[in-house]
Amino acid sequence: MSVTPKSSSPASGLTHFDAQGQAHMVDVSAKAATHRVAVAEGWIRMLPATLQVISQGSAKKGDVIGIARIAAIQAAKRTAELIPLCHPLPLTRVAAEFEIDETATRIACRVTAETLGPTGVEMEALTAVQIGLLTIYDMCKAIDRGMVIEGVRLLEKHGGKSGSFVADTAG
Amino acid sequence: MSVTPKSSSPASGLTHFDAQGQAHMVDVSAKAATHRVAVAEGWIRMLPATLQVISQGSAKKGDVIGIARIAAIQAAKRTAELIPLCHPLPLTRVAAEFEIDETATRIACRVTAETLGPTGVEMEALTAVQIGLLTIYDMCKAIDRGMVIEGVRLLEKHGGKSGSFVADTAG
Amino acid sequence: MSVTPKSSSPASGLTHFDAQGQAHMVDVSAKAATHRVAVAEGWIRMLPATLQVISQGSAKKGDVIGIARIAAIQAAKRTAELIPLCHPLPLTRVAAEFEIDETATRIACRVTAETLGPTGVEMEALTAVQIGLLTIYDMCKAIDRGMVIEGVRLLEKHGGKSGSFVADTAG
Amino acid sequence: MSVTPKSSSPASGLTHFDAQGQAHMVDVSAKAATHRVAVAEGWIRMLPATLQVISQGSAKKGDVIGIARIAAIQAAKRTAELIPLCHPLPLTRVAAEFEIDETATRIACRVTAETLGPTGVEMEALTAVQIGLLTIYDMCKAIDRGMVIEGVRLLEKHGGKSGSFVADTAG
Amino acid sequence: MSVTPKSSSPASGLTHFDAQGQAHMVDVSAKAATHRVAVAEGWIRMLPATLQVISQGSAKKGDVIGIARIAAIQAAKRTAELIPLCHPLPLTRVAAEFEIDETATRIACRVTAETLGPTGVEMEALTAVQIGLLTIYDMCKAIDRGMVIEGVRLLEKHGGKSGSFVADTAG
Amino acid sequence: MSVTPKSSSPASGLTHFDAQGQAHMVDVSAKAATHRVAVAEGWIRMLPATLQVISQGSAKKGDVIGIARIAAIQAAKRTAELIPLCHPLPLTRVAAEFEIDETATRIACRVTAETLGPTGVEMEALTAVQIGLLTIYDMCKAIDRGMVIEGVRLLEKHGGKSGSFVADTAG
Repeated sequence: MSVTPKSSSPASGLTHFDAQGQAHMVDVSAKAATHRVAVAEGWIRMLPATLQVISQGSAKKGDVIGIARIAAIQAAKRTAELIPLCHPLPLTRVAAEFEIDETATRIACRVTAETLGPTGVEMEALTAVQIGLLTIYDMCKAIDRGMVIEGVRLLEKHGGKSGSFVADTAG
Repeated sequence: MSVTPKSSSPASGLTHFDAQGQAHMVDVSAKAATHRVAVAEGWIRMLPATLQVISQGSAKKGDVIGIARIAAIQAAKRTAELIPLCHPLPLTRVAAEFEIDETATRIACRVTAETLGPTGVEMEALTAVQIGLLTIYDMCKAIDRGMVIEGVRLLEKHGGKSGSFVADTAG
Repeated sequence: MSVTPKSSSPASGLTHFDAQGQAHMVDVSAKAATHRVAVAEGWIRMLPATLQVISQGSAKKGDVIGIARIAAIQAAKRTAELIPLCHPLPLTRVAAEFEIDETATRIACRVTAETLGPTGVEMEALTAVQIGLLTIYDMCKAIDRGMVIEGVRLLEKHGGKSGSFVADTAG
Repeated sequence: MSVTPKSSSPASGLTHFDAQGQAHMVDVSAKAATHRVAVAEGWIRMLPATLQVISQGSAKKGDVIGIARIAAIQAAKRTAELIPLCHPLPLTRVAAEFEIDETATRIACRVTAETLGPTGVEMEALTAVQIGLLTIYDMCKAIDRGMVIEGVRLLEKHGGKSGSFVADTAG
Repeated sequence: MSVTPKSSSPASGLTHFDAQGQAHMVDVSAKAATHRVAVAEGWIRMLPATLQVISQGSAKKGDVIGIARIAAIQAAKRTAELIPLCHPLPLTRVAAEFEIDETATRIACRVTAETLGPTGVEMEALTAVQIGLLTIYDMCKAIDRGMVIEGVRLLEKHGGKSGSFVADTAG
Repeated sequence: MSVTPKSSSPASGLTHFDAQGQAHMVDVSAKAATHRVAVAEGWIRMLPATLQVISQGSAKKGDVIGIARIAAIQAAKRTAELIPLCHPLPLTRVAAEFEIDETATRIACRVTAETLGPTGVEMEALTAVQIGLLTIYDMCKAIDRGMVIEGVRLLEKHGGKSGSFVADTAG
C-alpha cells in the first residue's frame, strides 16, 4: 500500500481545495524556507469624543492602544488555530503600529509579520490587525457602540516563489 | 487584612480602566444573568472573478463559505482568549450567515451570538465575523490578494441593564 | 430591524443544521440547566508484551496509565475547541478509569463527565476517552506501532429533556 | 554547575520515560529534520438510516463530512497540546479523506500528515482521525446515539531513522 | 448498568485523588454557586538598575508593568487549561496590581479573582500572579538574567463552604 | 511604498521595546538557529505533614509529583501563548525533576528545556517550573493553603550569540 497521492490543484485556482473539491492543508514541504514578510492594515472609525478619550489615555492613563498592540501581537501567534487551513509558522518578528487620524476620526493599525518558513505570513498580519482593532472596540464600546472597522487588507508581501505583492493604493 | 477594594469607574467613561487608569476585567458579579443577543456584520470585497469562483464552489465543489462558517462559529468560542479584557461566557447559540452580493462584488457575513449571562456578547459576534471573513480571504488569496474587509460593526444588541442598541443605518 | 429569526430544524433530524442546511451552534437558551451525566468507553488493543510493560509500569516505574488519565481529563475541558459545533460547558466532574484486560490484551478507558448545564456532556466524555487512549498509543508506540483503538462509544447518559440513554450491550 | 545530564532509555523500551521511570519529552535535537509522512485510519459505524442522511447531506444540504474534515485538519494542529509528551511540529501538509461504506454502514476517515522535522507525525494523523470521527458523532447523535468508533490505527509511516512502517492488514 | 459510583475521599485528605489513589476532577455539582474571591501575591526581585528602567518606563515609554498586567489577566482565563485538575470557571472579575518597592528592589504583583461558581478561584489568582511576574522577567531579561520570583502565595479567600482563609503574615 | 523599517533598540536596553517605547516581538530572523538549553528552578514550601502526604503518594497512591511533572512539560509548550512577546519555539526536549527536601519541608522543581532555534528557551523552562509548582499547590491546597512558591529563577542557559549564563549561587 502506498502513501495517499497528492491531488493536483483544482481548475478553480483555489489551492486550498484538491481536484475533488475537498479542503486540505496544502503541501508546502517542497517549498524553500525563505525569509517572508507581510504588512497588513485596517482602521476603526469612531466618534470624535471617543478618539479624544483614547488620545488622552495613551498619553497618560488608560492606555487603550498599548493594550490593543499586545492583543494584536498575541493574535498573530494564534492564527493557525483560528484560520482552518493555515500552516503553523515560527514567527520571527511581529510589530504593530497604531496611528491616530484626528481628521478622519479613526485609528489605523498596521502590522508587520515575518518568518523564515515555507509559506507566507499574510494571514498572521491580517489576524493581528483584526484582533488589534477589535480590542479597541472592546475597550471603548461603553461609550461608543457605533464604531466601524474598515479597510482591512494586505498592503504588501515579500519572499517566496510567488514574489512580491504591493497593494495599488493607500486604501 | 481585607479584600482589595473595587475601584470606581474613571472619569473617561472607559469601564475597562479603574480610577488609576489601570486595565482590569470589570466586576460583573452583581449583574443579573439574563438572555443577551448580539448581531454583528461585515463584508469582504473582491474581484468579480473571485466571487464567481466562490459562488460556484458553494453550489458544488470547494465550499469556501461552508468552511468560513465553521471558522466563524469556532472563533466565537475563543473570544475571551483573544480580547484581553473580555469575560469568558457560556454561549448558548451562534449562527453565521453569508450573503453573496454580485452587484457590489462582495460577500457579507452576519453573526448572531447569544448567552444567558451577566454581560453582553458583542465581542463574540464581532470576532466571529472577523475570522469568518479572514477565512474567505485565506482560501481565495491565491487568486486575489487585493480583497478588502469592510463595514465590520455591531448591528444590534439586546438584554442587560444598558438595554437595546440598534445601529442607525444598514452600513 | 429585528434579530435574525431562528431556523426550525431540518427534515433530516440533524439539529446541527438549520432549515437551509447550514451548520450552526444550536440554541440552548430555553433548555433548563439540569444535572447531566455521560459515560463513554473505548479500548486499545496491543501486543501481549506491550501490555506487560504497561502493567509493570503502573505498579512501579513509568506510569503510562497515570499520564493517560491526566490527558483524558484535560481533553474533556478542551472539547468545545475541538468539536466545531459543541457548546462550551462548565464541567462539574470528570473521572477516567482504565482497566487492563490481560485475556484480550487490551486496556479499556471509561470516562464519566458531569455538568450542571443546558446541554449534554457526551462529547466531553467521548473526547476524553479518545485522547486518553491516544496517549497510551503515544507512550508505547516505540515498542508497538500496530496498536488499534476500538469500541469508542457512549455507554449511557442521563439528564435533560431527552431523558436517559443506556447502550444495549457491553460492546 | 553543569547542564542536567540526559538519562538513557529505560529497560522497558518506553522512550517517554527516563532511566528513573520519570516521564519526559524526549530529546530530538540530534535527529535530522527530514521529510516524514504518516497515514492513519479509523471508522464510525452507524445505523443505515443515519448513513443515508449523511450521504444525502454531502450531496446537497447539511454537509456533515465537510465539517468533519475541517475539524480533523484543525485537530492535527493541536496535537502537541492534547498529547502530553508530543513535540510541537511544523506540519507541512494535512489531508483528510472520508469514504462511505454502505455495505458495512460505516464511514472511514483516513488522514495523511506530513512534516519536515526531527520526529514523526503519527500522533498528528491519529488525532485528526479521532476528532474527525467524533465530529461525525456530534452532528448525528440527535438521531443515533449508538454509533461506535473502531479500527483507529496507524496505516503507515515513512521517514526518520526508524524507517518505514506499513500495517499488516486492512483492518 | 448504572452510572460509575463516585469514590469517597482518600485517607490522605487530598481530594484530587479518589479512594484508589487515582486523580480525578472532583465533583462540585452539589456545591452551591456562590460569590467567591481569592487574592494572591508574589514578587520579583531584581538589580536596582533594572528596577529603575522599569519605573521610568511605566511613567513614559516602554510600559513593562502595563504589559505584565494584561498577561496576568489573560492567564487567569487559561488556568483550567494549565492546571490539570482545575474546573473551568466563569470569572466575574480579575484585577492585577503591581507595586514597586525601591528599598527591596523588587516589584510585587497582587491579583484579585472573583467568580459566581461552585468552587474557589485561588488557582486563577495564583496563575495570574505567576504569569504576570514571568512577563516582567521576559521583558527585562536582556539586562538582568538573575531576577528571582519569590513569595507567591494565597493571601486570602472568601466564599464557599470551607469559609474564609486569611494568610498569617504579610509574606 | 517600502516595508516598515525596523526600529533600533531603545536606550533602556529593553529589547522588547522599539525606539519609540512600543512593545514588539523582536526580529530574530538574522539569528542563527543553534542548539539552546535553559535550566530553571524553584520550590514550594509547605507544612511537614503536607510533605509527608506527598512523599507517601509518590511511592504508591496519589502521585502528586507525577501529575505536576506532566503539567510542567505541557506548560512549556504553551509559553508563547502566555508570555505576550515570546517567540513560538519548536522545543526539542523538556525534562522536569522534583526533589523532596525534608529538612526545609519543601519540594524543588528543576526544568531543562532545549531547542534548535534562533532564540533562547529560558521562558519555557521558567513557565514549566511555575506551572509544575502551582499544580502541587492545587493538589494539596485542601490540606495546606499556606504553601509558598519561592526561588523561581534561571539557573543556566547555553547557546546563542550572548553565550552562557550560569547563576551565581544555588539559590
